Amino acid sequence: MIKGQARQIIGDGVLSGVIQRDVPSPRSGELLLGVHATSINFHDLIGIDGGIPGLPVPRVPFSDASATVLEVGAGVEGFAAGDRVIPCFFLKWERGPVDAGLMQPVLGDQVDGALQTHVCVPARAVVHSPANLTHEDIATLGCAGLTAWRSVVEEAQIRPGQTVLLQGTGGVSLAALAFARMQGARVIITSSSDEKLERARALGAHETINYRDQPDWHTAVLDMTDGKGVDAVVEVAGGETVGKAIQATRVGGHVSVIGVLTGFESATFPLALVMQRNLTVRGVTVGSREHLDAMCRAIEINGYDPVIDSIYDLGTADDAIAHVRGQSHFGKVVIRVGKD
Amino acid sequence: MIKGQARQIIGDGVLSGVIQRDVPSPRSGELLLGVHATSINFHDLIGIDGGIPGLPVPRVPFSDASATVLEVGAGVEGFAAGDRVIPCFFLKWERGPVDAGLMQPVLGDQVDGALQTHVCVPARAVVHSPANLTHEDIATLGCAGLTAWRSVVEEAQIRPGQTVLLQGTGGVSLAALAFARMQGARVIITSSSDEKLERARALGAHETINYRDQPDWHTAVLDMTDGKGVDAVVEVAGGETVGKAIQATRVGGHVSVIGVLTGFESATFPLALVMQRNLTVRGVTVGSREHLDAMCRAIEINGYDPVIDSIYDLGTADDAIAHVRGQSHFGKVVIRVGKD
Amino acid sequence: MIKGQARQIIGDGVLSGVIQRDVPSPRSGELLLGVHATSINFHDLIGIDGGIPGLPVPRVPFSDASATVLEVGAGVEGFAAGDRVIPCFFLKWERGPVDAGLMQPVLGDQVDGALQTHVCVPARAVVHSPANLTHEDIATLGCAGLTAWRSVVEEAQIRPGQTVLLQGTGGVSLAALAFARMQGARVIITSSSDEKLERARALGAHETINYRDQPDWHTAVLDMTDGKGVDAVVEVAGGETVGKAIQATRVGGHVSVIGVLTGFESATFPLALVMQRNLTVRGVTVGSREHLDAMCRAIEINGYDPVIDSIYDLGTADDAIAHVRGQSHFGKVVIRVGKD
Amino acid sequence: MIKGQARQIIGDGVLSGVIQRDVPSPRSGELLLGVHATSINFHDLIGIDGGIPGLPVPRVPFSDASATVLEVGAGVEGFAAGDRVIPCFFLKWERGPVDAGLMQPVLGDQVDGALQTHVCVPARAVVHSPANLTHEDIATLGCAGLTAWRSVVEEAQIRPGQTVLLQGTGGVSLAALAFARMQGARVIITSSSDEKLERARALGAHETINYRDQPDWHTAVLDMTDGKGVDAVVEVAGGETVGKAIQATRVGGHVSVIGVLTGFESATFPLALVMQRNLTVRGVTVGSREHLDAMCRAIEINGYDPVIDSIYDLGTADDAIAHVRGQSHFGKVVIRVGKD
Repeated sequence: MIKGQARQIIGDGVLSGVIQRDVPSPRSGELLLGVHATSINFHDLIGIDGGIPGLPVPRVPFSDASATVLEVGAGVEGFAAGDRVIPCFFLKWERGPVDAGLMQPVLGDQVDGALQTHVCVPARAVVHSPANLTHEDIATLGCAGLTAWRSVVEEAQIRPGQTVLLQGTGGVSLAALAFARMQGARVIITSSSDEKLERARALGAHETINYRDQPDWHTAVLDMTDGKGVDAVVEVAGGETVGKAIQATRVGGHVSVIGVLTGFESATFPLALVMQRNLTVRGVTVGSREHLDAMCRAIEINGYDPVIDSIYDLGTADDAIAHVRGQSHFGKVVIRVGKD
Repeated sequence: MIKGQARQIIGDGVLSGVIQRDVPSPRSGELLLGVHATSINFHDLIGIDGGIPGLPVPRVPFSDASATVLEVGAGVEGFAAGDRVIPCFFLKWERGPVDAGLMQPVLGDQVDGALQTHVCVPARAVVHSPANLTHEDIATLGCAGLTAWRSVVEEAQIRPGQTVLLQGTGGVSLAALAFARMQGARVIITSSSDEKLERARALGAHETINYRDQPDWHTAVLDMTDGKGVDAVVEVAGGETVGKAIQATRVGGHVSVIGVLTGFESATFPLALVMQRNLTVRGVTVGSREHLDAMCRAIEINGYDPVIDSIYDLGTADDAIAHVRGQSHFGKVVIRVGKD
Repeated sequence: MIKGQARQIIGDGVLSGVIQRDVPSPRSGELLLGVHATSINFHDLIGIDGGIPGLPVPRVPFSDASATVLEVGAGVEGFAAGDRVIPCFFLKWERGPVDAGLMQPVLGDQVDGALQTHVCVPARAVVHSPANLTHEDIATLGCAGLTAWRSVVEEAQIRPGQTVLLQGTGGVSLAALAFARMQGARVIITSSSDEKLERARALGAHETINYRDQPDWHTAVLDMTDGKGVDAVVEVAGGETVGKAIQATRVGGHVSVIGVLTGFESATFPLALVMQRNLTVRGVTVGSREHLDAMCRAIEINGYDPVIDSIYDLGTADDAIAHVRGQSHFGKVVIRVGKD
Repeated sequence: MIKGQARQIIGDGVLSGVIQRDVPSPRSGELLLGVHATSINFHDLIGIDGGIPGLPVPRVPFSDASATVLEVGAGVEGFAAGDRVIPCFFLKWERGPVDAGLMQPVLGDQVDGALQTHVCVPARAVVHSPANLTHEDIATLGCAGLTAWRSVVEEAQIRPGQTVLLQGTGGVSLAALAFARMQGARVIITSSSDEKLERARALGAHETINYRDQPDWHTAVLDMTDGKGVDAVVEVAGGETVGKAIQATRVGGHVSVIGVLTGFESATFPLALVMQRNLTVRGVTVGSREHLDAMCRAIEINGYDPVIDSIYDLGTADDAIAHVRGQSHFGKVVIRVGKD
């Protein structure tokens, strides 16, 4: 009998070696997927380090996956063996507005995730991959890609000609750059590295700001927007940068809060500025199956070339995680899980 | 020749005595209004105390007004002498989304306001009063009433059956109570006074919480909403309460930030909670002429009985201001300016 | 063993006598419901008469139901035996925007419906009934009530003070009257009967028009709205009335098209008027589970007293249908199915 | 003294020769514009032929203009002599939702329009032209361009990856093609000419259909969309095509009605299909100053190369009109009015 391979979280920050597991059969309504690749998100690191209360140990981590349907459970329509697919981050949030009851389970948190060759997931939590991308590219879409898509397309509802401010060159910001351009927006991006800014410009950013050279970078943003400020910000950092980001946003503008890299406790918001500037601040955590499907279809029409920093494999997943912790990467760190 | 009467801000926190002024003639596009009554808002106190940079001194303060058209300037359509009207807080924001260029001048800030018997304003910044209210009632609508209306009706877009959380029993919260009820919503209101809560209940609040007795009042709100939290909050305070308000709001819910009573500097927002709960936080400062007109028409159809704490006159405006500073009032403090 | 009772469509327009059937057991994910009452909708008549292609014969008709949970299938959360519930018209449309794949099956069309004492339905297609209504009242909500709710609340997004035009005094129009009032709207209603208009006025209509006496009733509507026209129309008839309804709608207004009583072929729309008046015309067929749940919660907060014309029982269902065909009813015709 | 040149409508369908007129001075709030170019829209032909009741005769026709500010009236901010600008079709509709009171006057209808070298317009009805287009290109934007922009961007709110159906290769459809692409949409376009379809494909259309070869072209559209239908249609024709367009639109899709080329009387809509497919049908006539400004800024960021069929001058305006009547043009017919 064929065995699958997996790696598990077996303690805070500790990954097991590669283990062998029986390949499960899909129950009614499920698909058995063969996982080709996954990628690492900041959310995964929090979970691995024990930052999300109540997760089972041991468990297989990671939500991102590029997979192929291996077997179709009873009663499933719309999928066939061989289909290239992406499972959803939120296994229950299919469509419509977000709701507390739909935010669990998350693939790789409350249930075993993508750092294994075989996984069964509900067919209602799966979409067809974009036909024009490789498995490594597809592996970047489910979490970082979808967070960017939901922020820029679904929530901020950017129109052509509007200006979007992106912070840094992490996976979400670079995906947001692509989707903002796909909607005809003008993009301003910040970083502490001129080299990264150069690469962002090559990827389509209209304007760049080195916030190390210009600590008052928000005034630079105002200068680039005739003193008005940008229409939308994708706020990834938290901490001090939030106040500057808000000062760089136009009256009536939109701020997507998608991460708090500087830590949960200290991350706060200047309330008076939000009020005076009549801003809309919106918390965004990934998105629904409907959002994921819309993003995949948009990628098929418009193309998308996600920035991949490096590719590891199942045996070197530890190195991949360490590399992400090091924060020197530009783009996504991908792990090949199964054979193509 | 007939003279008008006015009182002016002549220094930080200092009001002149009643002075005589020539009655102006309306220019092209303007209306000359006879002011019957005004009311005091927190915004006025900030301005009076020098908290808004760049305001002229001396100037006539106050934005709220119930007035009658006395004379119609050239080229004005839609108004006639004798019409009962309300001038707008923002003299330029007529309709459509908020914009930086429309937020000045504010009546009583950059231009002379309503603490005078006669004032000329652009006809484009005036709406007809609800036919079924007195001048004292109408004088409460322009700032506090409209802030509540915009928060609950225009921004949060409450549907019948949804739950709204209101904080305290100030002018905005009590107006929001009325408008939330007008939309069929369920209302939970907090206060530190059982007596005030009793009165709020008489005004239509479904549930009340004394936050002095229950410092963890947000858990009480969760209990009242099957553990889900409310659909919308009108946040007036800032400071510590914001964190609790956010914990009391359902995933995907709406928080209107309309005031920072606890001070501008310290007012901050727990960013991580906004993100995790996928909240929409929206800064709201008053509203447009279109919003004001919509509110007045709604009042004509549904009635509205604003809570008036006390009524002063032009000569005792200082006492009115002192009374508001004392914070023992329940509802709005009104000043009669001219004769009815 | 206990038997259930049912009546079936056994040919175009032909209903079987009361038959005995084994009571089914709920499968995984299903609920076994005991049906107390159903009510008759225009949609049911079309189906009964063979007007909906491809429906199975024999089948148990009717989508409306007030029911009690009798047995809970495996894996179902959120329901217990004894809960009072309503099954959805569209068994698959849970939430989010409408989609072709969600519009089948309809309860009583592609699958057996509510004219039987026992029925199994997916738990995902069931909501809790409003606690404050009787089974007869609840039986009016699922189709006509929800169509009205979605038109007025979800699609037209009426605000307090806006004006809604309702046509006739059928089940949808009378429900729309209640929901429009629940949102603080002003209601104008038309009918060919002064007596029915009198009753509509008693139910809360602000203005009434007898279109038999006033064939140019749209001009009467314009007179009632300062020449502007209403903000929203719920269009139930089709045919000639559409043109008049559109002329009675303000520039930029909203027209919900929920029925074509005058026949499918002939029902057309004056396109030039739609364009010139910049109208939004929206086709509405019932709604989602999320809409149904929102409506039920709104009814719990605000009360709702649906107009019931008459109540039949399982044995006299033919008479109930004939009575609806006769079109002399005012409000809903209800059929008691099981014992309370 | 310098004289301006103009041509006037002096009877139904009759244009005067070139006449000399004094150049007016801008009044308070106005700008004096030097008109470089205008273009011809279907709306203009209706007006010229007497199809719009109540227009003054003689009058200078045409709403489209590419112009330069020559003189700035008192009290005007934001414009200086030499600025390249576009006046609005609706001189009063600045921002926010459409309203009956804002739909008159139209430039060239109730007031003198753009077929003259000098015209005064309110500064509130003027926007800055895109910096990257010629006068001939800019002259195509105000009516056809803006109608396309409002349909596709503001009303249909197309997202990347959605599919838009465009009918024919007139000015609005070709502009809609560009704006749909600017938003990342997939475009299907129909025509009776293979040559025109070839050109549409070169302009970015993904799919083309010759409706002469395929009278049941709506089934071809369904084939191209996996049987679902398109997300949005820009309906320009009226008559029989509407029914097919609606059958080619997905459940829940959006139909912009922007023209009734086949005649006002006969243009009708199949109501039952609108209902069954839960469509949103929206009448669109041009747009607001805010829309025009948004479009111009989008063009500056994304570029735009409007299709110009031919260019006439003031003296040959009759020929230009005759050429448009002949309907053999592909793209816009432009008239140079003043010198560049």
